Amino acid sequence: MQLDTLIVNGMVVTVNPDFEIIENGWVGIKDGQIVTVQPHRPGLLLPNVIETVDANGGIVMPGLVNTHTHLPMTLFRGLADDLPLMTWLNDHMFPAEAKFIQPESVYTGTLLACAELLLSGTTTCCDGYFYEHFAAQAVSRSGLRAILGQGVIDYPAPGVPDPFENISVARDFIHRWQNANPLIQPSIFCHAPYTCSEKTLREAKDIARSTGSLFQIHIAETKHEYDLIKDRHKLSPIAYLDSLNLLDSRTLLVHAIWLDDADIDIVARTGAAISHTPESAMKLGSGIARIPDFIQAKIRVGLGTDGCASNNNQDMFQEMDITAKLHKVSSLNPQTMKSRTVLEMATIGGARAIGMDRIIGSLESGKQADILILDTHAPHLTPLYHPESHIVYAAKGSDVRDVMISGKWLAKSRELVSLNLDEILDRARAEGKRIQEWRTHRETT
Amino acid sequence: MQLDTLIVNGMVVTVNPDFEIIENGWVGIKDGQIVTVQPHRPGLLLPNVIETVDANGGIVMPGLVNTHTHLPMTLFRGLADDLPLMTWLNDHMFPAEAKFIQPESVYTGTLLACAELLLSGTTTCCDGYFYEHFAAQAVSRSGLRAILGQGVIDYPAPGVPDPFENISVARDFIHRWQNANPLIQPSIFCHAPYTCSEKTLREAKDIARSTGSLFQIHIAETKHEYDLIKDRHKLSPIAYLDSLNLLDSRTLLVHAIWLDDADIDIVARTGAAISHTPESAMKLGSGIARIPDFIQAKIRVGLGTDGCASNNNQDMFQEMDITAKLHKVSSLNPQTMKSRTVLEMATIGGARAIGMDRIIGSLESGKQADILILDTHAPHLTPLYHPESHIVYAAKGSDVRDVMISGKWLAKSRELVSLNLDEILDRARAEGKRIQEWRTHRETT
Repeated sequence: MQLDTLIVNGMVVTVNPDFEIIENGWVGIKDGQIVTVQPHRPGLLLPNVIETVDANGGIVMPGLVNTHTHLPMTLFRGLADDLPLMTWLNDHMFPAEAKFIQPESVYTGTLLACAELLLSGTTTCCDGYFYEHFAAQAVSRSGLRAILGQGVIDYPAPGVPDPFENISVARDFIHRWQNANPLIQPSIFCHAPYTCSEKTLREAKDIARSTGSLFQIHIAETKHEYDLIKDRHKLSPIAYLDSLNLLDSRTLLVHAIWLDDADIDIVARTGAAISHTPESAMKLGSGIARIPDFIQAKIRVGLGTDGCASNNNQDMFQEMDITAKLHKVSSLNPQTMKSRTVLEMATIGGARAIGMDRIIGSLESGKQADILILDTHAPHLTPLYHPESHIVYAAKGSDVRDVMISGKWLAKSRELVSLNLDEILDRARAEGKRIQEWRTHRETT
Repeated sequence: MQLDTLIVNGMVVTVNPDFEIIENGWVGIKDGQIVTVQPHRPGLLLPNVIETVDANGGIVMPGLVNTHTHLPMTLFRGLADDLPLMTWLNDHMFPAEAKFIQPESVYTGTLLACAELLLSGTTTCCDGYFYEHFAAQAVSRSGLRAILGQGVIDYPAPGVPDPFENISVARDFIHRWQNANPLIQPSIFCHAPYTCSEKTLREAKDIARSTGSLFQIHIAETKHEYDLIKDRHKLSPIAYLDSLNLLDSRTLLVHAIWLDDADIDIVARTGAAISHTPESAMKLGSGIARIPDFIQAKIRVGLGTDGCASNNNQDMFQEMDITAKLHKVSSLNPQTMKSRTVLEMATIGGARAIGMDRIIGSLESGKQADILILDTHAPHLTPLYHPESHIVYAAKGSDVRDVMISGKWLAKSRELVSLNLDEILDRARAEGKRIQEWRTHRETT
């Protein structure tokens, strides 16, 4: 058999079930799949390959899985910070979205997001936004693997001026993208239980069920929301979703911060998964999700950066670092959330949470070739005792040298292959200039 | 007047008392000092300069001040993670230090640390370790600005096998380095109130007072320490130091996590300063320092990364990001620790905490030219609405393009000027190999 690509001379962090680390390993790729992961031994003959890539002693690892993004919101990065959630949403984000979220800006913002994700080592993301069709076009162009959810909310929204249409727009989106690109799975994203009616939530989940799609929803993000739902429905947010029969293995609960013990039991029993977004929850002052308890309850948990307006970066390496540290300090126990646990959460765990663990999340034969090579020739990664420690506590997105998705190189030597970065930055700056002018005008009138 | 260097075409974040930001500014440097910071206006004639540097639309800002490091501990980065503080110290760090901390390893580890600091934008650090004379030699070679403290502990320590000599070794170090290099101030670093006797602490502070040096000490790091000191001395750690007359404006209290209201009053009254080390305190599960309360009490607070064995990186950009986010989530208030506050803490605030704010910490005429240029031509820094937001929430050390200290370029286009990175990495890897072999041997016997 002739391989398409052989990666040699790397420290291979497989994230397989035994968390095997191969000090000097080979990873062979053919037709977009991993076909061999093995140690290099003296005397071993090189297989017949088209392309050999030297990892130069760096770390070879699975691509990162970012389970919560709002890709086009890159355009609002740093527009409004350090504000209470409702002020930030109602006075800044919703007006900016109403004014600037158009097909073209969604396309541009998504390209910008894909550029950032690829250059910092995310190979799969799970997104939700409006005009998601245009996000999907940009993601297709980038070569990223993604689950893309059309946003549903019971208010007039970009691309859905009449909220009575929100379900049918989402249905159309799913049908349109269901078999359009093997790297893209369409999905439906309900904004929240306080912005979507019972009817909307049920209909959205029905569509997800009938199309086999992932149903995503922001849930239990703030104490305010918890109190509101409890007041309205006499149930916690999680119990409320359960009462509507929305929870199953194809439901992704995003944020999931304000959960009591009974809520955890519900999530565990129904098999729903959780997207943990620590940086965004910290920045918005929302709270600390009970991740160690979720893990104990065998709930599937993935990591997510959230949109760029509330983080404000999409660097999953930093997200891993903060995840490990946040839960240690909140439990006053440095043994909480060890580096291996966190690395698994950002790779195979995230893949499990979004139902893709059979094809991605680890370097194993038969999986899709979604692979990173980290350049460890840097002071902050020297010496190297435990690669999983460096990945979580010392590496940054900027240490990612090469990125492969489904056997194709999308970044080489820290440069994008599929996208023209200068063109994307120019377009994003032009959008930014318009937004800046509008904001300045608003502030002075 | 002929300038040595003029930086043009940058967004200048001065961090001056008005937090002035100049959208398109000039920074002029002569004889190691900043002599002009001004907006570029059409028709303005370029002054007579030797060297003009184009910031290319990037951010020009003061160099970062890292108020707590243990430079040589880069060699132990990632050697032992996710362990309780006392297990980590007693079973891993102290044995590794006893075996491997020698003049040569201190020199190598410090060079490695300086390389990391420079490349990620730290221009001044405040350090404490053993064999600090050799750390000082490496820092001198690097061109970094530093306060360097000889470590004092009442146990046999590297370079001080007889603890009865600990004070005299520190005194000798201070005398030796007091006028040796204008960029280096010697200091004395007492390990902690539970590892130094009353007599040691008093004598150390006496030397600091008589030589005008900064007195540094780890204090109130864990609940365990708080209880121990309270049990031994019937006083909180802070009150105990105060009872020994150790607190004044030339005392830097490192960590300062377990403080009650009375302790905060003591620190405010005595004028002692605090080094806040959030990442290390999170990773070790020590607790969350009451920084917003310290600021309210007008206590000087700087930021520090701590040593690489407990963080495990020295990236002050990430430290800023985590600082802002940690205090927001712990107060459930996104308005806590705004980006401006955090940026000030990492620059002028840190300079104030270590008594250097008259010469560094902001871009103002008359100050030393310690300057960074950030490359903003990157997806994660586009668009740019508020530079202080990007600095805190989106930028990383890897975005630092050029670094100047006292008018000299020490990094240009992300490459070190004063140090040979390959040589440093080779030496550090050789040390790492010896440490790895020892650890493997220890674990198998």
